Amino acid sequence: MAENANLENIRHSLAHLLAAAVLKKYPKTKLGIGPTIENGFYYDFLAPDGFTPEDLKDFERDMKKMIGGRLVFSGEKLTPAKAKTVFKNQKFKLELIKEFAKEKKQLTLYKTGEIFHDLCRGGHVENTLEINPDAFKLTHIAGAYWRGSDVNPQLQRIYGVAFATKEELDTYLKMRAEAEKRDHRKLGKELQLYTMSEEVGPGLPLFYPKGAILRRILENFIIEIQEKRGYLPIWIPHITKGELYKISGHLDKYDTMFPPMKLKNEADYFLKPMNCPHFMMLYASIPHSYKELPIRYTSTTTVYRREKSGELSGLTRVRSLTQDDCHVFAMPDQIETEINLMLDMIQEVYNAFGFKDFRVGVSVHDPKEKEKYIGDPKIWKLSEETLMRVIKNRGWKHQVDVGEAAFYGPKLDFIFKDVLGREWQLSTIQLDMNLPARFKLKYIDSDGMEKQPVVIHRAILGSTERFMGILIEHFAGAFPLWLAPIQARVLAISEKHQDYAKKLFEELKGAGIRAELTESNETLGKRIREAQLQKIPYILVVGDKEKQGGTVAVRHRTHGDEGEIKSDALLQKILKEARDKII
Amino acid sequence: MAENANLENIRHSLAHLLAAAVLKKYPKTKLGIGPTIENGFYYDFLAPDGFTPEDLKDFERDMKKMIGGRLVFSGEKLTPAKAKTVFKNQKFKLELIKEFAKEKKQLTLYKTGEIFHDLCRGGHVENTLEINPDAFKLTHIAGAYWRGSDVNPQLQRIYGVAFATKEELDTYLKMRAEAEKRDHRKLGKELQLYTMSEEVGPGLPLFYPKGAILRRILENFIIEIQEKRGYLPIWIPHITKGELYKISGHLDKYDTMFPPMKLKNEADYFLKPMNCPHFMMLYASIPHSYKELPIRYTSTTTVYRREKSGELSGLTRVRSLTQDDCHVFAMPDQIETEINLMLDMIQEVYNAFGFKDFRVGVSVHDPKEKEKYIGDPKIWKLSEETLMRVIKNRGWKHQVDVGEAAFYGPKLDFIFKDVLGREWQLSTIQLDMNLPARFKLKYIDSDGMEKQPVVIHRAILGSTERFMGILIEHFAGAFPLWLAPIQARVLAISEKHQDYAKKLFEELKGAGIRAELTESNETLGKRIREAQLQKIPYILVVGDKEKQGGTVAVRHRTHGDEGEIKSDALLQKILKEARDKII
Repeated sequence: MAENANLENIRHSLAHLLAAAVLKKYPKTKLGIGPTIENGFYYDFLAPDGFTPEDLKDFERDMKKMIGGRLVFSGEKLTPAKAKTVFKNQKFKLELIKEFAKEKKQLTLYKTGEIFHDLCRGGHVENTLEINPDAFKLTHIAGAYWRGSDVNPQLQRIYGVAFATKEELDTYLKMRAEAEKRDHRKLGKELQLYTMSEEVGPGLPLFYPKGAILRRILENFIIEIQEKRGYLPIWIPHITKGELYKISGHLDKYDTMFPPMKLKNEADYFLKPMNCPHFMMLYASIPHSYKELPIRYTSTTTVYRREKSGELSGLTRVRSLTQDDCHVFAMPDQIETEINLMLDMIQEVYNAFGFKDFRVGVSVHDPKEKEKYIGDPKIWKLSEETLMRVIKNRGWKHQVDVGEAAFYGPKLDFIFKDVLGREWQLSTIQLDMNLPARFKLKYIDSDGMEKQPVVIHRAILGSTERFMGILIEHFAGAFPLWLAPIQARVLAISEKHQDYAKKLFEELKGAGIRAELTESNETLGKRIREAQLQKIPYILVVGDKEKQGGTVAVRHRTHGDEGEIKSDALLQKILKEARDKII
Repeated sequence: MAENANLENIRHSLAHLLAAAVLKKYPKTKLGIGPTIENGFYYDFLAPDGFTPEDLKDFERDMKKMIGGRLVFSGEKLTPAKAKTVFKNQKFKLELIKEFAKEKKQLTLYKTGEIFHDLCRGGHVENTLEINPDAFKLTHIAGAYWRGSDVNPQLQRIYGVAFATKEELDTYLKMRAEAEKRDHRKLGKELQLYTMSEEVGPGLPLFYPKGAILRRILENFIIEIQEKRGYLPIWIPHITKGELYKISGHLDKYDTMFPPMKLKNEADYFLKPMNCPHFMMLYASIPHSYKELPIRYTSTTTVYRREKSGELSGLTRVRSLTQDDCHVFAMPDQIETEINLMLDMIQEVYNAFGFKDFRVGVSVHDPKEKEKYIGDPKIWKLSEETLMRVIKNRGWKHQVDVGEAAFYGPKLDFIFKDVLGREWQLSTIQLDMNLPARFKLKYIDSDGMEKQPVVIHRAILGSTERFMGILIEHFAGAFPLWLAPIQARVLAISEKHQDYAKKLFEELKGAGIRAELTESNETLGKRIREAQLQKIPYILVVGDKEKQGGTVAVRHRTHGDEGEIKSDALLQKILKEARDKII
């Protein structure tokens, strides 16, 4: 029965049925590819006139009919010559066939009954019997470039979701509807936080003032959290000669680097895709003594990664990532104190955002594959025991992933579950015995000997952009007061109260509260609705009564009408709520 | 007599005499080029064993002898073939000859008596009689790549200074000695503010914590100055598709852009050399009403310019420039208010740094060349009259430069004279009628019509890096308290006072004072000297007496011993001095 069939096979088979339904209605459609994805599948089409939502309904109905037809899926090998004949009208398939032939890969053809065939590596149900016709749904259409590249034609991608049972589908669709309401790309626009520009390029968000203010609140919060614990800021440029990445070893291995800038008569320059090598250079540029260690360098700085344009998404998958990066240079016996300091910071940060549901992945080396790892085995032992102990001591939910350590050291990953139950990887702590060796980092120990420090990488938010995306969705754009780009908006009931409104506005600004004042040329009702849509925590209304009494009528975003309050008391109330980071 | 001869000719002739003296002592030396520069000249040599300071003395003595020899300078035209014979042992000259031949340029040979000849376009004294032998000096040797490119061999560059009279030379050398003491490249290293890295590349400084803190103080100060006047922060990425610069017109014209990053199957990407186009995109991305204007967007963001590596110098000429950039989008009748707001800011900033000696250049269009300029003549008239009026109203020293306006609008430049009398261009205010047109910027006016806003560009510091270089030299590294990366250092007389010292240190830190605490394992005298070398404003010494009395012995960087003071009073004193920005 359907419940027992492999969900991957069901989803993949549905992609074929979708293509069959599309070709049935629009025989001239050119087929792209149709893989499975998380929770479902998609198929890319070049349809001369595009598709309408009505089309989706037709395709869905037809697919259900096909499922009822008990169609058999079967595969057979194909020579390139034969394949070219079969797909002679399908230009994208012909492109794939050529590539397969060039790489001497075997082509296979999968048939769905007698109604459809596709170039495909397989992974299907044996019979459409195995598919529950009530447990799938075509959800939406989106544009997608052929092979993810914007120099290629743009295709129409039809997305579908599919599960084993109708209940699972319904639960998923409900969660998804909620996720759509919270979609940070939608809210980012509505709340005027950021925009994307065709002329600047994909994955490169530009932030409006409200977004820039939110960025700054986040970044300054992390800076403050760090500096009160003895972390020191540094500043590094966004580019470097390739030479730096030869030393670090990234030049050959790191494949999402932007291509080089080739200067005439000079070395090639690169945009930095990570900060570590620049941090290492700063440490290496001056001699160090054991008395100075640990040295805790931190920088909030943007790196650039050439993620595929097809994989970019709003703020959560970008090409410009601003990292709250830090590198601690420590002696081995300082590792425990340093890790604990980092855990303190992570705890303080997650508390401030109200993130209660998180787990820690402890990645350690695989003792069966000792040859995979570099560095002193004594430091490995010490590091891994330390990581395990400190996490256990805190009683945090965690799992140990043997063999998941990097070749240069063990690490901790913090995975946060948001209000919709989706998991996001946030903070990372990574021990490193590789870069200190490659950059020949040294310190003079108390015995007068040159020794190599351990480096600990650490990010708390991960990247400002991605963290903002997560925050927007987690809070559905209704940020806690301490994060809200605009904390209060002052509305005068009519023109004659505008002066008093302005006075109150100036008081709020003077106290460091992020406030706005509206003109009174729209109705009060309209202005209140507008402020509510902007999810502003405090809407402050003033009329005759308030002007006479030196008070304000307070309407809170979630608590509703809070009545009249003296303006002084209001200021104190707002300042305290922000300072205490009340969620 | 020498006093009347053209100083340029004197300097150029001295460069030839230097080359003659070098060849006399080291006949195998290969000659590079020898131009005049500000205050003197240099000549580049490839000397197999380099030069010593002793050599410079010899060369100088020999040059004086040659001057006494009343040598005649004479020029003659040369064919490439002849030139190749004359310079057959001079590989760099041969390279130049080839280039001249290729470009069909006339070659000329200049002779100095019978003792020396050089490939040279001329500009010499007629007779060495015209040179005052006591009014020049060879100053130093530096490495320089042949033709300024680091793929070419490194040469030895000998620098000389020369004037008409000995008095002028002496005055200059005195000023220069003071400038050398203040050289920000020297102090930047001694005070551990920043470093350069061979592996990262020239013109790309990396900042140590003290430098990063100074950067932040400067940048946050400007942010604060702006935001209290209604400026709003934005954030933009450091790269863009070339498309953006096609619209702005920079792609063809701007020649210090880094070369493109060529992505496979995507448009070319560029590092931004300026921020304007990104700012324009943000404004253009949403509709605007006259009610919103003026919109004042600001961002402190790094741009990258491919300055020639030979022209880079410390922080004052870099490839990574962090601009305190701002673009105001305004209606024509808002220009005056906006310019005045900018002048208020500039005045407040210069006051805070104690910059009293500055002048303003007002660049206006040339009425005789009307065809050179774009934009509405009415806005030109309004803008130029406004600029003149506001500057006059303030009574600021200024001059009007007719014809110096950009083709798209008039501007103000602020030129500051530092403590050594050197002039530095700092702030700029530039009207722009070009970018609003190119980016089709619009607002809906009160009459319901679409109109084009005026853009006003403005930077106060110019760039963080360059401004830091200027500040370091102006203050000789002894920054006013509000700027000092470390404001106070606490020294315990001996180990038994360390606890009290630590308590004081924590109090200072808690009050937001940038303090350091030293270990007491060095002698007090040594620690005081070390703190003085670091130019730390307050050295706070504590021993028995201070511990018992809850006091501190204060030693001020410039005022010297200030006696004992209660620790509370000290905190208040330091905080007030920083808040008031006492210079």
